Amino acid sequence: MLRQHQTTLHVDTRGRGLAEITRPVSEWVAQSGLREGLLTLFVRHTSASLVIQENADPDVRGDLDRFFARLVPDGDPLFRHQDEGPDDMPAHVRAALTAVQLSIPLTHGRLALGTWQGIYLWEHRTRPHRREVVAHLLGEPGPA
Amino acid sequence: MLRQHQTTLHVDTRGRGLAEITRPVSEWVAQSGLREGLLTLFVRHTSASLVIQENADPDVRGDLDRFFARLVPDGDPLFRHQDEGPDDMPAHVRAALTAVQLSIPLTHGRLALGTWQGIYLWEHRTRPHRREVVAHLLGEPGPA
Amino acid sequence: MLRQHQTTLHVDTRGRGLAEITRPVSEWVAQSGLREGLLTLFVRHTSASLVIQENADPDVRGDLDRFFARLVPDGDPLFRHQDEGPDDMPAHVRAALTAVQLSIPLTHGRLALGTWQGIYLWEHRTRPHRREVVAHLLGEPGPA
Repeated sequence: MLRQHQTTLHVDTRGRGLAEITRPVSEWVAQSGLREGLLTLFVRHTSASLVIQENADPDVRGDLDRFFARLVPDGDPLFRHQDEGPDDMPAHVRAALTAVQLSIPLTHGRLALGTWQGIYLWEHRTRPHRREVVAHLLGEPGPA
Repeated sequence: MLRQHQTTLHVDTRGRGLAEITRPVSEWVAQSGLREGLLTLFVRHTSASLVIQENADPDVRGDLDRFFARLVPDGDPLFRHQDEGPDDMPAHVRAALTAVQLSIPLTHGRLALGTWQGIYLWEHRTRPHRREVVAHLLGEPGPA
Repeated sequence: MLRQHQTTLHVDTRGRGLAEITRPVSEWVAQSGLREGLLTLFVRHTSASLVIQENADPDVRGDLDRFFARLVPDGDPLFRHQDEGPDDMPAHVRAALTAVQLSIPLTHGRLALGTWQGIYLWEHRTRPHRREVVAHLLGEPGPA
């Protein structure tokens, strides 16, 4: 019998960059007791996003952030919206270029992530923020 | 007991730019009578996309469109596919860079959008179009 | 009564570029016997992605790849992570700029794709790879 669960995860970021959330997400999924299903994560902000990226070499996360800093420069005179500073509008653009939501199948009690895949919340503002990620899990305890 | 509903929303765009669809989407969700679940929106086109962006300052939407117009220039000689004009291939690239689908949890009868999040259909063609967005809702009337 | 199915599709790519997977995906969905629901595809890699793009003019796929090759140049000195060659980090950036997951409603026994929409696995590495795409289908045999 299909069931669903929901929760809200809080992520304290240290400013711009990728913060891994694979562990708290996986732990919540494990607690549900469901074994086959679909997890959906949704970030409730327009200046942060959710990405799946390599979890081995930390240079990957640094390179990603450097690339986006060059692609969407802070303080670009193109932008009119600067209410909260030079990183305000670039954060919105970065959010549009990436994902606010991810869905990941649950197979035999584990998220179907590849060997090198980790789940990250990407903070696009330069200052630390407390971010909210809503998690929705659909599934059933036995085989699909 | 989990149930599902589906519908197709029609969105008349005024040419390139972001058209807010938060209200028609929320109204359809409210009519379903479901209170806990997951909404998925899917745009049936390759030259429009779906984004969640700030719903307060309209400059944000203008800046987004200006940024993408600079990033993916109309009439770029790089592009061979120009069947429908200089904005044809840039529209496909913009669609690849953004999202064709969004899933948003439904919590206590409301979409789990953050305070500043609105749902937008992003028209990438310069001329107005009638666009179709398929909405799928999974959920149940009571608490999850 | 809502049910779910899961499978893993294997896609052999010929190196960088878009490989259409609409047919194997549609065939698996048809075999499920479900008529109304939601399909989710998830790619288990950080150097490939899933996109929905025009299935008519093959120039569109070529233009997409040319655009991304210019936007995220191989061997860019900005990148520190080069473990697997000059196309390694650009593949991760391309994955972040596009989607690792797609959800598509199922309506009257067919995926709700628009007329010109095809589903593609986008290989971002220059060499051929065998890629895994996990498919999750939720739905029911009768009308929603």
